[in-house]
Amino acid sequence: MPKKELSLAELFSPRGVAVVGASLGDQYSFARHVVESLKEAGFPAIYPVNPKYTELLGLPCYPSLQAIPGVVDHVVVSIPAESVLALLDDCAAKAVKSVTFFTAGFSESGWKDRAELERAMLSKARAGGFRIIGPNCVGLFVPRSRLVSTTGIPLEPGPIAFISQSGGHAQNLPLYTGPRGLRFSKVVSYGNALDVDETELLQYFSRDPETEIIAAYIEGVKDGRRFLGALKEAASRKPVVIHKGGTTEAGKRAAHGHTASLTSSVAVFHALCRQLKTIQVDNVEELIDVLVALRFASPLPQGNGAAIVGLGGGPSVLAGDEMEEAGLHLPSLSPEVQAELRQFLPMAGAIFSNPVDATNLVSPEAISATMRVLGKVPDIHMLIYHLGFHPASRWGDGRLCSAEFLQPAIDALAQAQKATGKTVLLALRPAPDLDGMKDFLAAQEAFVAAGFPVFHSLRQTATAMARVVAWNQA
Amino acid sequence: MPKKELSLAELFSPRGVAVVGASLGDQYSFARHVVESLKEAGFPAIYPVNPKYTELLGLPCYPSLQAIPGVVDHVVVSIPAESVLALLDDCAAKAVKSVTFFTAGFSESGWKDRAELERAMLSKARAGGFRIIGPNCVGLFVPRSRLVSTTGIPLEPGPIAFISQSGGHAQNLPLYTGPRGLRFSKVVSYGNALDVDETELLQYFSRDPETEIIAAYIEGVKDGRRFLGALKEAASRKPVVIHKGGTTEAGKRAAHGHTASLTSSVAVFHALCRQLKTIQVDNVEELIDVLVALRFASPLPQGNGAAIVGLGGGPSVLAGDEMEEAGLHLPSLSPEVQAELRQFLPMAGAIFSNPVDATNLVSPEAISATMRVLGKVPDIHMLIYHLGFHPASRWGDGRLCSAEFLQPAIDALAQAQKATGKTVLLALRPAPDLDGMKDFLAAQEAFVAAGFPVFHSLRQTATAMARVVAWNQA
Repeated sequence: MPKKELSLAELFSPRGVAVVGASLGDQYSFARHVVESLKEAGFPAIYPVNPKYTELLGLPCYPSLQAIPGVVDHVVVSIPAESVLALLDDCAAKAVKSVTFFTAGFSESGWKDRAELERAMLSKARAGGFRIIGPNCVGLFVPRSRLVSTTGIPLEPGPIAFISQSGGHAQNLPLYTGPRGLRFSKVVSYGNALDVDETELLQYFSRDPETEIIAAYIEGVKDGRRFLGALKEAASRKPVVIHKGGTTEAGKRAAHGHTASLTSSVAVFHALCRQLKTIQVDNVEELIDVLVALRFASPLPQGNGAAIVGLGGGPSVLAGDEMEEAGLHLPSLSPEVQAELRQFLPMAGAIFSNPVDATNLVSPEAISATMRVLGKVPDIHMLIYHLGFHPASRWGDGRLCSAEFLQPAIDALAQAQKATGKTVLLALRPAPDLDGMKDFLAAQEAFVAAGFPVFHSLRQTATAMARVVAWNQA
Repeated sequence: MPKKELSLAELFSPRGVAVVGASLGDQYSFARHVVESLKEAGFPAIYPVNPKYTELLGLPCYPSLQAIPGVVDHVVVSIPAESVLALLDDCAAKAVKSVTFFTAGFSESGWKDRAELERAMLSKARAGGFRIIGPNCVGLFVPRSRLVSTTGIPLEPGPIAFISQSGGHAQNLPLYTGPRGLRFSKVVSYGNALDVDETELLQYFSRDPETEIIAAYIEGVKDGRRFLGALKEAASRKPVVIHKGGTTEAGKRAAHGHTASLTSSVAVFHALCRQLKTIQVDNVEELIDVLVALRFASPLPQGNGAAIVGLGGGPSVLAGDEMEEAGLHLPSLSPEVQAELRQFLPMAGAIFSNPVDATNLVSPEAISATMRVLGKVPDIHMLIYHLGFHPASRWGDGRLCSAEFLQPAIDALAQAQKATGKTVLLALRPAPDLDGMKDFLAAQEAFVAAGFPVFHSLRQTATAMARVVAWNQA
């Protein structure tokens, strides 16, 4: 008789973690990397398991789960699929709460006996009263509990939950968005969704008090009706951003080989998501940008009118094109507004028509004055400042990258935002070389620390803001 | 009676360059930056002109053009618009061949008297027998002649000519594409196109023996019929890649304020470009990617079938979607081909359906064997290898970034390309942090030095290759 299922809430603060790995001694193994990562994160009770070793990375290594003296709530498994059923018996005997399988080669392999093996695993989990995450995933990242599966990710908790059918995305999202200020409550990579699935995760995060924004990368949905019910409830409580993988024939084929997902009709999925007031994105870049907008754009713009301010005629012309193509609107400026701008912007080499481009738009005074004039225009709902980083931006001893420029510019933009009540957004373009990247990363760090949303191009800014404004107005 | 116009060929190897700047003493001035850049590039005869100084940056500074003792073929001008006519009289007296005006505030300002001023400038140029580039531009970049307007750009000549109505793009394109291996024959920023215009430039480069590929950023065309004739001839001789700015209302407004361009009907422009067998791109990123493909993809793929090889299930699923959305095709693999792959790829955690994803696809042996199997499939015309760079890619002491990995991987890919006759393309994803960027830039440098086309994401690879294949098959 199966025991009552543990709720997800019980999985996120394990007292002890065992890492069971066939190749724990191999420096390239996932299991070893998990042990290293947990150590680096300061997780207090890590138990490597492999009968070949008595010590590993300075920790005692145990021959079996039962040999571990302390409490084990969570088990990370990377052993061949053939050995998993015996291990699950050990898990039941040790009274663990959850098991993550990095191990792959199950239903996604297309081999019939492996799908049967998955069903046997699920029976053992039900009988043993524990939950399975995966198989074919990287499992849990819970900053508050110092529960990690990789290194290099910021460990401060934050308000974003990420549900990911891909282990790569689950590890990459916090890694890539750290420098842009995004922090996470929990990240769950759930792979083949044998037990814990997208619907249960969505239900959990829609009520999780530590989560304010929900992001999801989903290849396939196991039970469409249940999922839509959960999505409806989640979207009524919090912003939900969904990235659907497997939308073309090649993507579907890969999704089936990746997580055994039978991807549903894209058109139907998109239509339902729209009805339910979720934000859909087309790729990881957009997912990141929309999360940055939701997290840091303050206030959220009340309309799609934008003003673009910065240095560079070509970029400004293209910005005009890209903004409108992405669904934002760049209102033209009245002669009165243009006259106001001409009081402090030089006529030569300048564009006053929105985008506003002038050679002195790197001086905090000019930036501030321009933003204040534009912020008064009723159909301008957001103010975008753009800046490029490359050797040429170092004219005059790198003025655009120096602390002398950055802090006054940040203050000017913060004051303009406060004075006008219009959100200020930053489009900082990364550099092609290492010196330029140093400047870019320093500037990004300063703007992010000051609480601004930072995007990496005007096109990306426009795409993200158009989606967020449409969602906010729906 | 106007003299016969000088042909453009006479403008690209000036014996002496004068830089006339009202603010030559100001460290932020364009004119000063041009003098610094010419010095750094080793241009032999640089003459700063400004009556306020007798020396500048270690060079004698002259009160006027006439005071210069040597030959002056080219003059770079950054003085207020009000003073330009007198300067042009000096240019005629000094018998110069060409004058570039960084100075802006002419027809693009919308002021009627400034448009008249432009016409007076043109009359003086015709009467004086010299050519005007701009106004409102950064002028010429000719690596062979060490003629430059900014620093940080590779000075080796290469086969690409770039015609740019935007000065920013003219400076940024060589700067940003240097690390990806692109080198230029000539870059001309022509701003308001008062004299030298897009049509004359196109005619010149279509016959320039130093130019094999022509790229153009154009906001507006002065004479549609002449331009189309020139485009037709150029496209029949060389690949021509066109990036049209000012395609939306906001972009048009900005283009008019930027270079006084009256942008033409986008639909008509696009339709004509298609008929004339040019490659059109939508943004700078695409322009760069298409140039990389044209320059380094060898042989150019004979069809749009691609195979994707690399590590990472999520990225592979998305790759499938993105490739097909961009217009490439990922042929599925027959059971026979899959069986061949399984001989050396592990079953667990792998996808064999194209994209091919396996944990050992970072070993040169596995990469090489996989590429050779896929290269035999008839409807696969190109082989794409993808690799990400971030702290997690440093598992096992940074194996993916080390010389030990890079050189064998490069050799494996080069041999696979040779053995299969199918183009190998690289999608290297930049990193979010400085350590990752160091690894990324080192890997990019190594792959570029080996002659491979390097793109920065699978999406960008697909977009560029789809455009190039369509052009090649047209």
